Amino acid sequence: MERVGYYNGTIGPLEELQVPFLDRVCFYGDGVYDATMTRDGVILYLDDHLDRFFNSMRLMRFQPDFTREELASRLQQVVDAANARDLFLYWQITRGTGLRQHAFLPNAQPNLWIYAEPCPYEDLSKSVPVITVEDTRHHHCNVKTLNLLPNVMAQQAAVEAGAEEAVFVRDGVVTETAHSNVHILKNGVLVTHAADNLILPGIARKHLIAMCHELGIPVDERGFTRQQMLDADEIIITASSTFAQRVHSVDGQPAGCKDEATYTRLRDALVAEFEAYIAQQGQAADPHAAADATDPATR
Amino acid sequence: MERVGYYNGTIGPLEELQVPFLDRVCFYGDGVYDATMTRDGVILYLDDHLDRFFNSMRLMRFQPDFTREELASRLQQVVDAANARDLFLYWQITRGTGLRQHAFLPNAQPNLWIYAEPCPYEDLSKSVPVITVEDTRHHHCNVKTLNLLPNVMAQQAAVEAGAEEAVFVRDGVVTETAHSNVHILKNGVLVTHAADNLILPGIARKHLIAMCHELGIPVDERGFTRQQMLDADEIIITASSTFAQRVHSVDGQPAGCKDEATYTRLRDALVAEFEAYIAQQGQAADPHAAADATDPATR
Repeated sequence: MERVGYYNGTIGPLEELQVPFLDRVCFYGDGVYDATMTRDGVILYLDDHLDRFFNSMRLMRFQPDFTREELASRLQQVVDAANARDLFLYWQITRGTGLRQHAFLPNAQPNLWIYAEPCPYEDLSKSVPVITVEDTRHHHCNVKTLNLLPNVMAQQAAVEAGAEEAVFVRDGVVTETAHSNVHILKNGVLVTHAADNLILPGIARKHLIAMCHELGIPVDERGFTRQQMLDADEIIITASSTFAQRVHSVDGQPAGCKDEATYTRLRDALVAEFEAYIAQQGQAADPHAAADATDPATR
Repeated sequence: MERVGYYNGTIGPLEELQVPFLDRVCFYGDGVYDATMTRDGVILYLDDHLDRFFNSMRLMRFQPDFTREELASRLQQVVDAANARDLFLYWQITRGTGLRQHAFLPNAQPNLWIYAEPCPYEDLSKSVPVITVEDTRHHHCNVKTLNLLPNVMAQQAAVEAGAEEAVFVRDGVVTETAHSNVHILKNGVLVTHAADNLILPGIARKHLIAMCHELGIPVDERGFTRQQMLDADEIIITASSTFAQRVHSVDGQPAGCKDEATYTRLRDALVAEFEAYIAQQGQAADPHAAADATDPATR
């Protein structure tokens, strides 16, 4: 199978899999998710993603009927069922199945969904245009919920404007984008929104901040306004698939791209960290194959 | 069938119906809905609900592949398939089926869902306790979206507190409840939140306000605080199933229930309006049966 779906133990082609009409996700978006990539069959930063997923479940009071290790094993099962080594790997829990009522269904078992499809490498040398939109989302943005309609609307607006991402602005302050975090470099300092309830604590964001510390780049988590973004030396988007993507325009105005040295230093360090992770995990999983593996850095 | 589901033309028992894993509702809550009751086989205030549903679709850029008349006919088809005359009748549109991507899927056909289950009459003579919770929802509350996780959490908190409803308070101001509108009576005036983007323009709310005008009760749409709710003469919840339900406590403190005359006058007028509607529509649909129909007022 190229594209694999999993629902409560049933595995099949994504396009053919069916789920109950009465899964609560269908009426309330009553679920939380997480997602990452696989590279050369290795699930990228799995521990980070499991930490966040279990935290999302805790905050929204989901009671999984699986342990962390069991989830990891089911994810691997789906990865193994896909005949591709480089995947987008996504999973979600929903709050059971039953007649529609807002409050939790007593005794309902949660449902586990997994989704995998081929995911090519992004071209990290390209820079992208973004637009800004008003951040009208709920106040649980620290949780990866399945309540993403404002994100859908924002991303559609970006596509229609020929942009790559929609940057949310709440009360004048930039929060994040429709599906990634956003940061600026100004005078050698990385400025980013605090990891409060208005943004997702991105795994790529976490690695970016840690890398700044490692490279001696100061980090300021007090956030920035739209105007400060327009005046920034660099605007950087982070997501699991892109690590650190450069922005070259905001709402059609040229912006960023004024501190290539710092941007490149950061991006290359993040890519090197990623490559080391994949190589190490791949080796741990299969020491014989690792010796023959092609170098992911060259792709 | 007691409980009937409909998905894109397929009708079956709610509990058995299946839908595609890749319906966009499953990842984004990417849909809008509406709901009402049937009484004696008549869909209550259908025109009002269709108006609101088509407005929700417009605001969230859904492109239905059905007309208003076609939707009404499919709703009736589901009502006819149910072997009960008093139903909860619910329907939603979702933005098509396909691989997960935030932006709209080009050329994807929307999916139409309909849900019906028996719905007994509410006891309108009882009053109920409510709790207050912080309103952390998105800013599209004027649209009946399928992004309802904060509503789920709020209603669950109400249930755990032994309350009937959770009243949302945003920046000190009462907006609405997890699944209805809320109003107060103070010195003979009905005070309610303005119909802006922070509340649903409830059909029962609309009928309540119109009835106030008819009965000479002034209406103030400037909203009220939690404290003003605690100090109110009456606190009234409106939903399609309850018309006007009386509240007797807020967060465990006795509240309301100090102007029974005005409350009862309003409630009885709303029930009479409802009964006249059902009788008239039932007669229009089936002039022979109407003569023998039992009086819904007595149930």
